[in-house]
Amino acid sequence: MPSESAQTGARMKVQHQIKTTAYHSGGFIGKYQRLVRETVIPYQYSVLKDEAQDTEKSHVIQNFINAGKALKGEDTADGFYGTVFQDSDLAKWLEAVAYSLSLSPDRELEETADLLIDQIAAAQDTDGYLNTYYTIKDRDKRWTNLLEGHELYCSGHMMEAACAYFDATGKDTLLKVMLKNAEHIYDRFITGKTEGCPGHPEVELALLKMYRATGNSHCLALAEHFINSRGCDPDYYKKEAAARNWKVWGANPADPDYMQAGKPVREQTDAVGHAVRAVYLYTAMADLASLTGDETLLAACRRLWDSITQKRMYLTGGIGSTVHGEAFSVDYDLPGDTAYAETCASIGLMFFASRMLENEVDGKYADVMERAFYNTVLAGMQLDGKRFFYVNPLEVIPGISGVSPTHRHDLPVRPKWYACACCPPNVARLISSFGLYAYGENEDTAFCHLFADGRVSFSNGMRLTCQTDYPYGFSVTYQVEKGGRLALRIPGYSKTFRLSVNGAELSAVPQKGYVYLAVSDGDTVNLTLDGTPYFVYASSKVPELTGKTAICRGPLVYCFEGVDNGGDVLSLSLRDDSVPVAGSYDESLLRGIVPLTASAFRTEETEGLYTCVRPGKKECSAVAVPYYTWGNRGENQMRVWMEEAK
Amino acid sequence: MPSESAQTGARMKVQHQIKTTAYHSGGFIGKYQRLVRETVIPYQYSVLKDEAQDTEKSHVIQNFINAGKALKGEDTADGFYGTVFQDSDLAKWLEAVAYSLSLSPDRELEETADLLIDQIAAAQDTDGYLNTYYTIKDRDKRWTNLLEGHELYCSGHMMEAACAYFDATGKDTLLKVMLKNAEHIYDRFITGKTEGCPGHPEVELALLKMYRATGNSHCLALAEHFINSRGCDPDYYKKEAAARNWKVWGANPADPDYMQAGKPVREQTDAVGHAVRAVYLYTAMADLASLTGDETLLAACRRLWDSITQKRMYLTGGIGSTVHGEAFSVDYDLPGDTAYAETCASIGLMFFASRMLENEVDGKYADVMERAFYNTVLAGMQLDGKRFFYVNPLEVIPGISGVSPTHRHDLPVRPKWYACACCPPNVARLISSFGLYAYGENEDTAFCHLFADGRVSFSNGMRLTCQTDYPYGFSVTYQVEKGGRLALRIPGYSKTFRLSVNGAELSAVPQKGYVYLAVSDGDTVNLTLDGTPYFVYASSKVPELTGKTAICRGPLVYCFEGVDNGGDVLSLSLRDDSVPVAGSYDESLLRGIVPLTASAFRTEETEGLYTCVRPGKKECSAVAVPYYTWGNRGENQMRVWMEEAK
Repeated sequence: MPSESAQTGARMKVQHQIKTTAYHSGGFIGKYQRLVRETVIPYQYSVLKDEAQDTEKSHVIQNFINAGKALKGEDTADGFYGTVFQDSDLAKWLEAVAYSLSLSPDRELEETADLLIDQIAAAQDTDGYLNTYYTIKDRDKRWTNLLEGHELYCSGHMMEAACAYFDATGKDTLLKVMLKNAEHIYDRFITGKTEGCPGHPEVELALLKMYRATGNSHCLALAEHFINSRGCDPDYYKKEAAARNWKVWGANPADPDYMQAGKPVREQTDAVGHAVRAVYLYTAMADLASLTGDETLLAACRRLWDSITQKRMYLTGGIGSTVHGEAFSVDYDLPGDTAYAETCASIGLMFFASRMLENEVDGKYADVMERAFYNTVLAGMQLDGKRFFYVNPLEVIPGISGVSPTHRHDLPVRPKWYACACCPPNVARLISSFGLYAYGENEDTAFCHLFADGRVSFSNGMRLTCQTDYPYGFSVTYQVEKGGRLALRIPGYSKTFRLSVNGAELSAVPQKGYVYLAVSDGDTVNLTLDGTPYFVYASSKVPELTGKTAICRGPLVYCFEGVDNGGDVLSLSLRDDSVPVAGSYDESLLRGIVPLTASAFRTEETEGLYTCVRPGKKECSAVAVPYYTWGNRGENQMRVWMEEAK
Repeated sequence: MPSESAQTGARMKVQHQIKTTAYHSGGFIGKYQRLVRETVIPYQYSVLKDEAQDTEKSHVIQNFINAGKALKGEDTADGFYGTVFQDSDLAKWLEAVAYSLSLSPDRELEETADLLIDQIAAAQDTDGYLNTYYTIKDRDKRWTNLLEGHELYCSGHMMEAACAYFDATGKDTLLKVMLKNAEHIYDRFITGKTEGCPGHPEVELALLKMYRATGNSHCLALAEHFINSRGCDPDYYKKEAAARNWKVWGANPADPDYMQAGKPVREQTDAVGHAVRAVYLYTAMADLASLTGDETLLAACRRLWDSITQKRMYLTGGIGSTVHGEAFSVDYDLPGDTAYAETCASIGLMFFASRMLENEVDGKYADVMERAFYNTVLAGMQLDGKRFFYVNPLEVIPGISGVSPTHRHDLPVRPKWYACACCPPNVARLISSFGLYAYGENEDTAFCHLFADGRVSFSNGMRLTCQTDYPYGFSVTYQVEKGGRLALRIPGYSKTFRLSVNGAELSAVPQKGYVYLAVSDGDTVNLTLDGTPYFVYASSKVPELTGKTAICRGPLVYCFEGVDNGGDVLSLSLRDDSVPVAGSYDESLLRGIVPLTASAFRTEETEGLYTCVRPGKKECSAVAVPYYTWGNRGENQMRVWMEEAK
């Protein structure tokens, strides 16, 4: 998009150069960040060190200790425990800790992290190899199972942690460990010309972070290598599987689309396979495109973006609609009740969106980023921070959901910590690093993609304080501490808006979803968005959604729960001539929400399963709550998409 | 139901005592029976003897030949081929042949059958054992795997064939073979007190047929034993599996509900597990109850009937909604697009219904029997008799159906003959024996449950000829050749009807769905039912069907196909104030149907996947065709349940 670049200046700079400071504890995001700091991080730490009650053993810290022992030839009585990617749980937790420390210093927590980093360093082999599964269990199996082995995946997550921890604390122990690890990988895959790409993309985006943090060219070369060679030999995994006599769980090497390796990345058109793998890969592709200006790669990213957002994404920003392989299905196959829509996949979609925003400033990317965050990502965590959804259906009916063979994965309430603990630390690191997604910049412009109460300073010198009750209030006020060019996003849902500087209204026409204005030190900028609740309709190409409507307000998708609606939402239909009404902000309800009320009909119960008599309907009103809050009041019916009736 | 019994006389007599004669070739059923005779039976025979093109090898006849050789110690170079229940394909085909011969003698076909029966007899061991899989492969494994082994299942189907063939031809070679086989089973399970019940019920209903055909008390005792001991030890299959070191495909012995063995049959309340197994078992239970007057057993049958028909049955009479185990799901889980709804399961539901009718005359049983037949059972077969659906969804969207991981089993067009060929011969035997379901009798009454052009004679001496264009014409005329008491069913869909004898109108109030009248030799009775198309609605407890409606006419459920509706039925909604209009009978369309037309709206295409702008709608008309004819004009969209709009 040369014209856009020309208009908004050069490409935006990369995220890590932005220093965001803590949000006010009163703001919506600030409250969530405090929840992560005070509840999620400590609880997850207790899990990692096997001290949590009622939880499957993690053993991840002990695995690192044992790997260190194994390297020294010492006895490791309790060996390795967990999945082949267990190491990544600690990495993601460390990354969340780093972001949290950058927001709110905590000496005790930092000391804990330092100690763990020492244990990680001790688990690194002299050649730079780092993975507790192989180091403890069988060093000869290293690098022989890229399909399932997750060695590069675990390295990637630890690299992300290393960058974040260096950024937050200035301490480079882990960064050095991971640079040495990157060098080991470089020796093998570049110098040693070993074939193969990671079965689970992740290291690519991490290597690019490492490159941006350190300028290490081997990191860039490795990322380019893994991205560019991916899918060039679709039979690679079959050959690899034929060459070894062991497996982890028996992933199918003959289905390269599952790991987005069916064709070279620049030829890919549809988002396919395991959804988390997909968006992690696309994130790296978009980041590499923004670094190198590779238009062919960017074109592929745009196609894949459209494939996801125009054909394969839930209204809630959930992706990967099928439980079979936690994967993308075909176009328009978006069942609400059997959805997979993994929390991690929506987090990855935010990554992808944020990297696309670095390629081209277009509100459509931020719209999806916001949709994913405020709906699926937040829904992934119970309001008390103690339980987590991996799977995020748009409809839950107790008695069917979690019970029927086709709905067994769609649970009516959040389960306790899983053995496969991918989502909880992913939510923690995402929330703690919200500023990385909320803001962008280039030489002369500060971009405000998302709205959150708090302060931010940019590396171009600009500094802002933002005051807002978003997503429940739609007035966003920026106090400009250090001025420059400001780009404010006008969300796609906000058909109207008001903009003022120091009280004087400004008329501005959004350009690809952003208004641009020059601001000076001390200016007060107010943006007031449209907070009117609105109905949403889906394309009739989505079989599941014909005749249905959903209610949203701002970025929030709403849902109807039984607890607010007489225990039964199935017999509710919404009046198609009704206007949903926003109630007052209620601090006591679901930790603070604005409920919506809509005119509705209650269909009378029929006799028997089928009847020839049209069931009667009675007028009533129906109450909706934000989707992210569902399932916090026990098992009950929940529905996002409702019938429309007259 | 003592009062009902009192009212309608004693319990009805059993089916096999009814001698139905051929239906007129012009009638709807007669045409289908001719199709089976002229196309399905010959084609299936070519498959069984491995002469069909483009079809997986059956080998079933060769298996019997080879088993005979094996018993004589001769070489069987090509051994056994196929599934463990391959024998049943030949049995079901033979049964269909028997019914067909009783309708229309065919010397060549009968000679073929006689020859095959000799080959079957030669495959029987001296001790009465009969199963080609074990006889050829490993005789030591006999009876050690009731969970998967299908020995009793195959015996059951051959017993059914034997009864039918004896009934049709008077030849008892196969009947004697199967009596000897039953004696072998009796020796093992009754005399020898061997534990265990068949993993796949079938032999129970077959043994009761054998008992009714021969009066052999061991057959009755065996059926009672398998029914009464079922589920008494829910751990039986686990113990059996632990005691052997082999398996067929690894069925789970720890899920006794899958084979309806989780509790004793008299304690069962919900229809669970593999749907075909379930209805085969319930059929036997109902038949035993009608033989013995066991009220506790009948009460269980009534509960299971209600579980199916009030909570777990599609509008089309399809049952077993989930592909996972081809099984019943939980209550109200009836997705149309991912339905399993196996053809064989609806055939089994007809069996169950017909046996319940022998216990108590109630139109609700015949209503379901008719629903299953005219919709799912007939849909199972292509109109040319050459291809078959095993799976019968209520919605098909090319691009999703058959492709999406959750819809892979729901094919848009009928596939060719499967290796597991359960459904095609099952459809063939059902259609050929339609009269067994259409009529019932007791000492003084002839019951007309279903309507079909043709003649029928009852063992109580009554004889009727029925003239009707049903299910497309709603006038049913009976010429009484030999009079008595006549019971005519008034279907549940027919809210009004007209009844006349020799032109004089009669006012009659249906009693549990039947009108009763005394008729004399030479009388002409006319029953005219209501053929007005009607909308159907589902209970709002069915999440998939809220806000939807379906159109029916008589017993036929209709569906909307793309080919009649501009290629797109997803964007169609039906006007809720419209009256569907029946067109003229069109001989040239889908081998003769009455299409329906309904006022509808066409929703305009939206921009993108989701929109805040309510899509526009244009008035249009929509054309529906009978569900059983769907998928006969190539891949296209199909939908039974439509949105309703104003």
